[in-house]
Amino acid sequence: MTAHPFDAALQLKPDSEINPDQFSGATSQAWWNMVGPFGGISAAIAISAVFKHPDCLGEPVSLTINFAGAMTQGDFTVIAKPVRTNRSTQHWMLTVHQLDSTGQELVALTGTAMTAVRRETWSVNDMPMPVVELPHTVERLLPPSKSVEWIRRYDMRPVTGPLPSVWDGGAPSEDPLHASLTQLWIRDEPPRALNFASLTAMADVFFPRVWLRRSVQVPVGTVSLTVYFHACSTQLAEAGTGYVLGQARGQAFRNGFFDQAGQIWSKSGTLLATTHQLVYYKE
Amino acid sequence: MTAHPFDAALQLKPDSEINPDQFSGATSQAWWNMVGPFGGISAAIAISAVFKHPDCLGEPVSLTINFAGAMTQGDFTVIAKPVRTNRSTQHWMLTVHQLDSTGQELVALTGTAMTAVRRETWSVNDMPMPVVELPHTVERLLPPSKSVEWIRRYDMRPVTGPLPSVWDGGAPSEDPLHASLTQLWIRDEPPRALNFASLTAMADVFFPRVWLRRSVQVPVGTVSLTVYFHACSTQLAEAGTGYVLGQARGQAFRNGFFDQAGQIWSKSGTLLATTHQLVYYKE
Repeated sequence: MTAHPFDAALQLKPDSEINPDQFSGATSQAWWNMVGPFGGISAAIAISAVFKHPDCLGEPVSLTINFAGAMTQGDFTVIAKPVRTNRSTQHWMLTVHQLDSTGQELVALTGTAMTAVRRETWSVNDMPMPVVELPHTVERLLPPSKSVEWIRRYDMRPVTGPLPSVWDGGAPSEDPLHASLTQLWIRDEPPRALNFASLTAMADVFFPRVWLRRSVQVPVGTVSLTVYFHACSTQLAEAGTGYVLGQARGQAFRNGFFDQAGQIWSKSGTLLATTHQLVYYKE
Repeated sequence: MTAHPFDAALQLKPDSEINPDQFSGATSQAWWNMVGPFGGISAAIAISAVFKHPDCLGEPVSLTINFAGAMTQGDFTVIAKPVRTNRSTQHWMLTVHQLDSTGQELVALTGTAMTAVRRETWSVNDMPMPVVELPHTVERLLPPSKSVEWIRRYDMRPVTGPLPSVWDGGAPSEDPLHASLTQLWIRDEPPRALNFASLTAMADVFFPRVWLRRSVQVPVGTVSLTVYFHACSTQLAEAGTGYVLGQARGQAFRNGFFDQAGQIWSKSGTLLATTHQLVYYKE
C-alpha cells in the first residue's frame, strides 16, 4: 500500500545516535509551491518531529513557525528540542536546516511549540462557525493546468472571497469587513482522517490576502505562521475525513507585509484551531 | 535623572566577551505580577536584546514569546541569536533563562523574532479603528489598593468590556460577538514616547478574557504571545506619548486554554500592531 501523499511527505528518521532531538527527511515534489515546498507541509513536518520525539508530553496547544528561506529539493534535518518540561506542559524550540552547495548549514525555518496534557474545564466558543452553503452545494476549485503542485493535494470549495477570476487591479469590495475575507471548505485529496499535522498544514492553505485585496498577483511569501490548537485528538478524530471550514481575513497591509487572522471549524461547528500569519509581499 | 520605570526594567548588559548573543539583566519589582514579572515586560526585554545586538538588521515585523515558567526575582540571561540573515530580513531565536537554587539553567521563556528593512509599498488597513469615546471622556481604571504592581505602570481607560465589578459567575453578555470583547485606551504612566519595546508590552495588558467571560477570577497565565508590527519607527514616533486604543476578543475557551485576538491603533487611527495570545486557565 502506498502512503497518502501527506504521510509520505512527513516521513522522518530519528538520528538519535547523533542527537536525540534530530530527525532527517527529504522534500516532496508532491507538495511543491512556486519556490520550495508549500509552507503548510514544512510546518507540519516541524511539529511532527515533536510528536515523534520520545520525550513528548501531551498534545500540541501552540505552534509558531518562521520561514527563514526557501528550502531546496533534497534532504533536510529537523531539530526539535524540549527545552523545558513542567508537570503538564512542555516547551519546544524547532529548526529545519539544509546544507548549501558549500556544505554550510542554512536555517530554513525556526519555530517554537508548546504541548500540554489537557484537562476538562469550563469551555465556550466565542467565534461561532459562520452560516455558509454546505460543501456538496459548492463547486470545487479546480487547479488550472499550470497550477503549483500542492494545490492538487486539497479539495477546496470557496464559499466567500474566491481567487479573483480577473487580475485587473480592481479591489473586490469596498466594504472593509469583507474586502479580504475568504471562507472555504477544505479536505485532503484523497480524503485522509484529520490529525494535528494535517490541521497545521490546512492553516496555511489560504491564498494570499493581498491577491484578493488588489486583484494583482504580486510576489508573496509567508514569513510567520502561528496555530493555536483548540481541539484534542478525540475531537480531530470526530472530524474524520470530512470537510473543515476555513476562514481568513487580512487586517493590515503595510510596506511589504500583511497579516491574516483565521479560524478552522469542523463541519459540525467545533472551532478546531485559530491561526495567524504574516506575509511578505513585493510592491 | 531617574530612568522611566519601563526603561529601567529593560537595562541589559552585553556579555559579548562570553557570547556575542548574550545579555544580562535583573527583574524589576515595579513590574511584578501575581507570580513573577508581567509577561509584557519580559517580552519587551527579549525583543530589546535583538535591538541591542550589533548585527541587528532593520526593525521588528514579528515576535512570538512562549512563557515556559514564572521568573523569580533576580538576575536573568537573554540569548538573542541571529540564525539567518537575508538581504533585507533576519531571523532570531530567543531564550531567557535563570539559574535555579541548584545552579542549573532553567529556561523561563523561548521565542522567535523577525526583523526587516521595510520598503514603501501599496498599503491599506482592513481593520479600521472602532469608533469609541475619546480617552479624556473615559474614566481611568484606578488600581485597587491590593493591585499587582505592574497595573500601576499604565493609565488604562476601558471603553468596552471593563473588568467585572461583581465576581458572581454571571456571563457579561449573551451576544457572542461582544461577550469577551474589551476596548481600552492606554498609555505608559508616567507618559513615555511609544517605541517597539513599549508597544510589545502593551500587547499583553488585556486582563484575562476568561475573567470577563465568566465573572470568576480563575488562575490564569499567558503561555504564548505573538505581535505583528505594522508600524515603522516613524509612525511610532508620531504616536508619541499619546494614548493608543487596544482591542482584544476571545475566540475559543477549551479545556484549560483560551486564545485572544487583538489590535492596537494610534489615537489617529493607524493600526500599529496586531497581536494574539494563548492563555492557560484552571477549572
